[in-house]
Amino acid sequence: MAAEIICVGTELLLGDIVNTNAQYLALELAKLGIPHYYQTVVGDNVERLKKAIAIARERSSILIFTGGLGPTPDDLTTETIADFFQTPLREDQEILAEIEAKFTSLGREMPPSNSKQALIPIGADFLPNPTGTAPGLIWQPQTNVTILTFPGVPSEMKRMWVETAIPYLESQGWGKERIYSRSLKFRGIGESALAEKVAHLFALTNPTVAPYAGLGEVRLRIATKAPSLQAALQVIEPVATEIKEIAGLDYFGADDDTLPAVVGELLRRQKQTLSVAESCTGGGLGEIITQIAGSSDYFWGGVISYDNRVKVALLDVNEQDLNNVGAVSAIVAQQMALGVQKRLTTDWGISITGIAGPGGGSETKPVGLVYIGLASPEGKVTVSEHRFGENRDRLTIRQISAYTALDRLRRNLLIMS
Amino acid sequence: MAAEIICVGTELLLGDIVNTNAQYLALELAKLGIPHYYQTVVGDNVERLKKAIAIARERSSILIFTGGLGPTPDDLTTETIADFFQTPLREDQEILAEIEAKFTSLGREMPPSNSKQALIPIGADFLPNPTGTAPGLIWQPQTNVTILTFPGVPSEMKRMWVETAIPYLESQGWGKERIYSRSLKFRGIGESALAEKVAHLFALTNPTVAPYAGLGEVRLRIATKAPSLQAALQVIEPVATEIKEIAGLDYFGADDDTLPAVVGELLRRQKQTLSVAESCTGGGLGEIITQIAGSSDYFWGGVISYDNRVKVALLDVNEQDLNNVGAVSAIVAQQMALGVQKRLTTDWGISITGIAGPGGGSETKPVGLVYIGLASPEGKVTVSEHRFGENRDRLTIRQISAYTALDRLRRNLLIMS
Repeated sequence: MAAEIICVGTELLLGDIVNTNAQYLALELAKLGIPHYYQTVVGDNVERLKKAIAIARERSSILIFTGGLGPTPDDLTTETIADFFQTPLREDQEILAEIEAKFTSLGREMPPSNSKQALIPIGADFLPNPTGTAPGLIWQPQTNVTILTFPGVPSEMKRMWVETAIPYLESQGWGKERIYSRSLKFRGIGESALAEKVAHLFALTNPTVAPYAGLGEVRLRIATKAPSLQAALQVIEPVATEIKEIAGLDYFGADDDTLPAVVGELLRRQKQTLSVAESCTGGGLGEIITQIAGSSDYFWGGVISYDNRVKVALLDVNEQDLNNVGAVSAIVAQQMALGVQKRLTTDWGISITGIAGPGGGSETKPVGLVYIGLASPEGKVTVSEHRFGENRDRLTIRQISAYTALDRLRRNLLIMS
Repeated sequence: MAAEIICVGTELLLGDIVNTNAQYLALELAKLGIPHYYQTVVGDNVERLKKAIAIARERSSILIFTGGLGPTPDDLTTETIADFFQTPLREDQEILAEIEAKFTSLGREMPPSNSKQALIPIGADFLPNPTGTAPGLIWQPQTNVTILTFPGVPSEMKRMWVETAIPYLESQGWGKERIYSRSLKFRGIGESALAEKVAHLFALTNPTVAPYAGLGEVRLRIATKAPSLQAALQVIEPVATEIKEIAGLDYFGADDDTLPAVVGELLRRQKQTLSVAESCTGGGLGEIITQIAGSSDYFWGGVISYDNRVKVALLDVNEQDLNNVGAVSAIVAQQMALGVQKRLTTDWGISITGIAGPGGGSETKPVGLVYIGLASPEGKVTVSEHRFGENRDRLTIRQISAYTALDRLRRNLLIMS
């Protein structure tokens, strides 16, 4: 009883996209304790897909397909599977009505080609797709063969997996022993520096501790195999507690925690409000803060002062200072933070001004030089200078700048609370 | 004569890493015009790897392996391939000396386990690894079978591919005919609606035309196999021209073109400036616009008016209108666009106000209701109402809103130019 992931799509064979679906599903299978020995990628081609199914059928009993469920002639996963198991397709009226309703809700008429997505092998069940028009299949065409199909769009596939496939697989007896894990997240410390601090934990076998590095964020994953979450936590929690103590303020959250959510929660708890003045990030900091639903409770808005005239007109930055020391300077960062705090009458004001590149750098002000200002409720402003590196690209410098600014606010909120 | 990519590694089956190697190699094979119909992922297991080789051997003649070349007992790609083709291994003294030298240069002694990496099937050649200790293989164990092996570390694999594998494959006659492609990009039209308009082109065999859908963006990829770019363009261009004529304003760019780059170029050419007033997108539109280096030439900045007080104070939105019809309304969108255009003294002003959800929706104003205002240099304001769908999540609604706003500006710039 092993699973096999079969990703269908010529775009994968052409290298147009990375197969993140296979990774997601692999991780999920591991969590449920479902063995999984092979993954296959095959193009949008009936004969080759049929051959891949024949091979997978011999060596695996749960066949998980992604891709090829769309409305175009290229999309042929459903009919090929049905054909392989010599089962005719039927049109499901309920699904057809749902697809039509989705188009109606968007104010559009359903193109005739989408009706194809309501075809299903006789005896199969639909795996509902709450966000897209392409539903999947749950089907046992033969004893000891389970077919699950998903669209190739990752967000649709993931939601269908969580909402329908997991409960189905659990009902089939999977998931009694699972891998449970906890990811602790850190900012303001490098991967190797953190790894050295907790090196003695990497030798543990239960739980295991492993580091992962992202963009300016480091994670430590603590994992164990256990029959229940409660049993897992008994193994995981003591190690998590030890790591948090070692890391201090560099630890900011676990698992699904995000920096803007953590900062938002601190602001909400302290009943304080925030505004931002952004130059080189161009709105990116505001965008990250407002990713959190309910952020209007503490985030009032900001000024994108990309042009110096906007810094003067809307943030009261001193024109002479701009001329003398330039927009990328500690003094302008200070005035921007104070300006937005005052104009928007919020408790905190954050400012970012820097050189995102690739052009615009000089010897004294290289690409990656960024000033972050933080105006506090007490009227104090502190400015930090960062050099995010000439080797990083524009988007990375902008993103690190926004997250670093948020992290500075987080540390200040924690110290003051 | 087709290639097959076989990625060996239990970490891929556990979902610990994304298989970027397969994408890289797929793209490279496509460039060289080497057909490639299957990819296989298999764990560090002799029996299963052998079975995967047997299957690949039946359907492909160039077998490209990544992973399993390291010094640990888990790494068994070389010996398993040798065993499959019933060929004994020999220890290559030259390679052994090179591995030892690499350790010496790091000031370390070679661990005994690394000597394993100097084993090679009799009759095979080494594929040198300039950066790591694990060399690969180039081997023709039988007529019409070519084996190439690479370590799993992407940077090592890529360098070995470029420096040795490409010249080798070219010496075997590949790369004389390559696949060239052009991706045309569209906005404001769904995948199926566009597909129906150009349905007659999907039947073409040279060039081929295939659709791909992204978030609010649809692409048509026109591809052909040709001995040179010039020859390819002769096949691709007439079809591209026909598609562009059919699509009209829905076509916005090709290949690496992005919407903010295209809009930026139009603004620059018309010497016009832009500012934004963002409510539900929280800065996301400004962020997208300023992803483009040099956007300061035409983008002056904006106001993130997340809270209504900011709409009044910085955008001159009428307080009574806010109370009467609410922030998510055509009239407020209109005032925001005019307000930011006036306050920032730019030619164009874009505004976005809407309900990104998941909370905050009502029967008359559901989640996904978004108003986009566009104030033109002539002082005209037009507001469009959108329903981006209650089934979409917050981040998607925000992103589609920002891109739709940019696309509205693009269409207006094109009509006026």
